[in-house]
Amino acid sequence: MIVEVLAVGTELLLGQTLNTNAAYIGERFAELGLDAHYQVVVGDNHDRMVDAIRTALSRADALIVTGGLGPTQDDITRVAICEAAGRRMLFSEEEAARLRSFWDRLGRPFPESNLCQAEYPEGAEQLRNPRGTAPGLFLEHDGVLLFALPGVPAELYRMLDDHVLPRLRTATGTGEVLVSRVLRTWGHGESAVAVLLDDLYHASSNPSVAFLASAGEVKVRLSAKAGSESDARALIEPLEKEVRRRMGESVFATDEETLEGILLDELRARGWTIGTAESVTSGMVAARLSLLPGASEVFRGSVIAYATDVKRDILGVPSEVIEAHGVIGPETAVAMAEGAAEVLSVDVAVATTGVAGPDYQGHPPGTVAVAVRTPIDTRSRLLRMPGDRERVRAYASTTVLQLARLGILGEWWGE
Amino acid sequence: MIVEVLAVGTELLLGQTLNTNAAYIGERFAELGLDAHYQVVVGDNHDRMVDAIRTALSRADALIVTGGLGPTQDDITRVAICEAAGRRMLFSEEEAARLRSFWDRLGRPFPESNLCQAEYPEGAEQLRNPRGTAPGLFLEHDGVLLFALPGVPAELYRMLDDHVLPRLRTATGTGEVLVSRVLRTWGHGESAVAVLLDDLYHASSNPSVAFLASAGEVKVRLSAKAGSESDARALIEPLEKEVRRRMGESVFATDEETLEGILLDELRARGWTIGTAESVTSGMVAARLSLLPGASEVFRGSVIAYATDVKRDILGVPSEVIEAHGVIGPETAVAMAEGAAEVLSVDVAVATTGVAGPDYQGHPPGTVAVAVRTPIDTRSRLLRMPGDRERVRAYASTTVLQLARLGILGEWWGE
Repeated sequence: MIVEVLAVGTELLLGQTLNTNAAYIGERFAELGLDAHYQVVVGDNHDRMVDAIRTALSRADALIVTGGLGPTQDDITRVAICEAAGRRMLFSEEEAARLRSFWDRLGRPFPESNLCQAEYPEGAEQLRNPRGTAPGLFLEHDGVLLFALPGVPAELYRMLDDHVLPRLRTATGTGEVLVSRVLRTWGHGESAVAVLLDDLYHASSNPSVAFLASAGEVKVRLSAKAGSESDARALIEPLEKEVRRRMGESVFATDEETLEGILLDELRARGWTIGTAESVTSGMVAARLSLLPGASEVFRGSVIAYATDVKRDILGVPSEVIEAHGVIGPETAVAMAEGAAEVLSVDVAVATTGVAGPDYQGHPPGTVAVAVRTPIDTRSRLLRMPGDRERVRAYASTTVLQLARLGILGEWWGE
Repeated sequence: MIVEVLAVGTELLLGQTLNTNAAYIGERFAELGLDAHYQVVVGDNHDRMVDAIRTALSRADALIVTGGLGPTQDDITRVAICEAAGRRMLFSEEEAARLRSFWDRLGRPFPESNLCQAEYPEGAEQLRNPRGTAPGLFLEHDGVLLFALPGVPAELYRMLDDHVLPRLRTATGTGEVLVSRVLRTWGHGESAVAVLLDDLYHASSNPSVAFLASAGEVKVRLSAKAGSESDARALIEPLEKEVRRRMGESVFATDEETLEGILLDELRARGWTIGTAESVTSGMVAARLSLLPGASEVFRGSVIAYATDVKRDILGVPSEVIEAHGVIGPETAVAMAEGAAEVLSVDVAVATTGVAGPDYQGHPPGTVAVAVRTPIDTRSRLLRMPGDRERVRAYASTTVLQLARLGILGEWWGE
């Protein structure tokens, strides 16, 4: 199946916005084994949008149009699709009622201009958008599956999962099935993983092995094609077993599982609670621990001790420890974790203190001390993170959560 | 002058690489006042590249092809240009000698496969690449200016400056300049902004008005073309004044300014410090307040009180307040903010407590109480946020930071 992504928006042509949507969709489509031939960006211009939609309809089996579904004058994707596909514009009273009730619930007056979001090309289905007001569109036109999705990434990601991928999976369902299994690993760099699995990488193209480094972890993707899903899974199974044998506890999650979800599960299984004492990560760890529904069963709270005297006054870090070891040191991190365990009444406490940069503060940027306190023991480590301020903070958050996972499992974490 | 960017590379279609080159070129072209109608991405496929180049040559005055100039089998941009423009491939002995001497200087044997980089379409000029080995190409074909540049960003940026922009400046001769000014607004939805500025939107195409909603804010972009930058700015100035008059304190930032930066500046100017007491946002506000370098001058820390007894024990929220008004109520948010101000020793404290969802917890998901305590006064509000768990948390964070900004300015915020 040949797929094409058409992104609508003058801000993309002007370079004010990066076309991350096309990259995201491209990645998801590649996982499904779909063939992408072109990506196109067009501005908020009626004639050129119509032209780009017509061209795509003539050469692709599925077209995803992103953007231009908002309520303002320059949101003309609905109109352009009507024109390109030769359809009349209809109006959905049901959708209009839904829009009105959305504003009602917010207690705000309904802007009549938003009624254009209840319009749809004849024959199209309106797709529910749980993260915003603009519904998407699905239209089968001359055998081509045409989808229109909002340009707001969070809305688009969700609607891709809810509406687009299931329909494309069904549409391609006739022939071969591509099954992928992603093992999320942490603790080895991409090249170390590549060396560790080199013979498996070269052994076969079906099942195949691929590596993708992202945000401090390395994903190992195992893929297989076969006549049925179970046959494809059977091809992957022995390969997965071998990868897991070699990588051990580095493999922390599979497919869509998240580090946050796995941590909550491990804590819940033990009846343990968790809290954080954060300086350099400043709430990023707490935000991740509360990301998932049900987090309140195990996550109780945090003390963000950005200023040194907050570390002392609320977390009870002894002045002597800070004087002897500095604000950024494993000993201080341990005292922060122990203080957090006490003041927050939690079983597990993690702590971070470090230099995010860009300036030197007794240590070079990227120096981060972390500690993990569990009912089993308390451990700490001094780390050096690469990258700029944002990267250091993000890496430090991931690292301390990974170390908490290993600490809870009672696994050793060394170099 | 109509310009088009054609990026070559299967990795772009697969979403493994973001098309930052197109965005960069788009921004530089916009500064020159050139009109971008399309951006296209095509894989490393001969026929489709030829097709994409032909299409662009038929509709643009200048075409920039990026990528596919390397020495490997899948680098076929040179070949595709020959085919699309009906030119023979020639070989430059001079370029070949330059390549050989480059390897000589590195003290490495010359890979013969690199000789393909000395090839060029008949009539084309080879463009020097001071940051790599692949020369670029410039070809005037049927009145269209065609450039081919390497895909490596550092090489491309430099060659754009050295070869492309000067030629396009000369070709346009008019010396038109496009200047944009982005006003970031908060407090009105996209459709409300569109209604408020409807007459300005329709009044003129130069200067022009455009809207972009993103992450809870609405950006208003004012653009003007003129013979010089100062003339373009003069066109924008009265329009900007009128937009600001209508939107008042909703306009919180201009161009690249951020809410976080503006808040830090306002606090620094007053010598005030800030801290947070967070439940539903769980550290997200703290993480944003510490996003920028130098944050430690004003941001001191936070108490993330996810569990109710942490609100009571660390923040000192009286049990009677919680019993009388519930965990999610403006009164509780006020007590949290006041507690945070005391325990963290800060001048300004913001508090959030609410239901992120998906489950009902005494209130429907999206119900969030916020409070802002400043040396001027303490205010609170009960809000209803749209969207899922992630959106509610993100919106609540932005909202409380916006309300803190207004509180610090002593502005009233209410419906």
